[in-house]
Amino acid sequence: MRQVTFGGANSLDNFIARSDHAVDWLLWCDEAAQIMAEFWPTIDTIVMGRKTYDVQRRMTADGVTPEGDYSGVKTYVFSRTLPEGPDGGATIVREDAADFVRRLKAQDGKGICVMGGGDLARSLFEAGLIDRLGLNIHPVLLGSGIPLFHQMTRPIGLELEESRPFKNGCIYASYRVVY
Amino acid sequence: MRQVTFGGANSLDNFIARSDHAVDWLLWCDEAAQIMAEFWPTIDTIVMGRKTYDVQRRMTADGVTPEGDYSGVKTYVFSRTLPEGPDGGATIVREDAADFVRRLKAQDGKGICVMGGGDLARSLFEAGLIDRLGLNIHPVLLGSGIPLFHQMTRPIGLELEESRPFKNGCIYASYRVVY
Repeated sequence: MRQVTFGGANSLDNFIARSDHAVDWLLWCDEAAQIMAEFWPTIDTIVMGRKTYDVQRRMTADGVTPEGDYSGVKTYVFSRTLPEGPDGGATIVREDAADFVRRLKAQDGKGICVMGGGDLARSLFEAGLIDRLGLNIHPVLLGSGIPLFHQMTRPIGLELEESRPFKNGCIYASYRVVY
Repeated sequence: MRQVTFGGANSLDNFIARSDHAVDWLLWCDEAAQIMAEFWPTIDTIVMGRKTYDVQRRMTADGVTPEGDYSGVKTYVFSRTLPEGPDGGATIVREDAADFVRRLKAQDGKGICVMGGGDLARSLFEAGLIDRLGLNIHPVLLGSGIPLFHQMTRPIGLELEESRPFKNGCIYASYRVVY
């Protein structure tokens, strides 16, 4: 069964971006870059929600290159409003995200990465489909913004795999999800 | 100037208790107990909000002994509804919490501990009065509950002092607050 990984950089108070989607507070470091460089070759599929897709398209339009090597990676975007089918390098999916990801997991392939905000992650956690969690916890309380973890209908158990502080004050933490 | 410390045990998704105040998900460990045993002698004052006080009184009524050695520690509870003055071992304060804590900090004495939920911490963070933050981040997503960090009107910068994983999968993290 393919592994589904969710995660990213978050503030200590559980935000992934300011309310206006700004991520100017993110800290760059070699240690996180190294972890990501090792992670990308383990996946061949990215799934994201429509809001994350919009943010990525705006960033691309502004000339910002997304982090990571996306060559050979299939990207699916879940949306109830965009027309289904190919859209640039991505594929828009109207089907229920949990049903779709459950089917993806049963297919042969490398890992699957859940990217972006927590709306999609919430439904995948609730459906028992996320296997791993990787965080780069930043030393800041943003006070408001877009949450990484949304409210869920049930608790999700975790097993810490690794945690270490980076030189820039971030804390790296990776977990296995226990359902 | 006396140091004001806020913190406690939280879930990875920023809750300190389930919606019904239950903390049955908290993990005991010698390493956290050791850190707390070293912390208590550095303080002589606890401040808390009325809701935390209510929870503590219910626990005491149920025969649960609060963690830590409170002998010789002065406890202030901020409330707009309880009568001002002594109440059991505590003192009820009706004054604005930030004004009161600012005055406490200017007095001679040991450290001050902000206990409990984040309602009080939010106003003290916003007033620039919290100096240190100590967390015992538990390996669980509670999904809902009482948040540790509340929404704030401004971001708060932090400097990581120490972080290490405990054997039970919790992550200890201590920060200096940078205003």
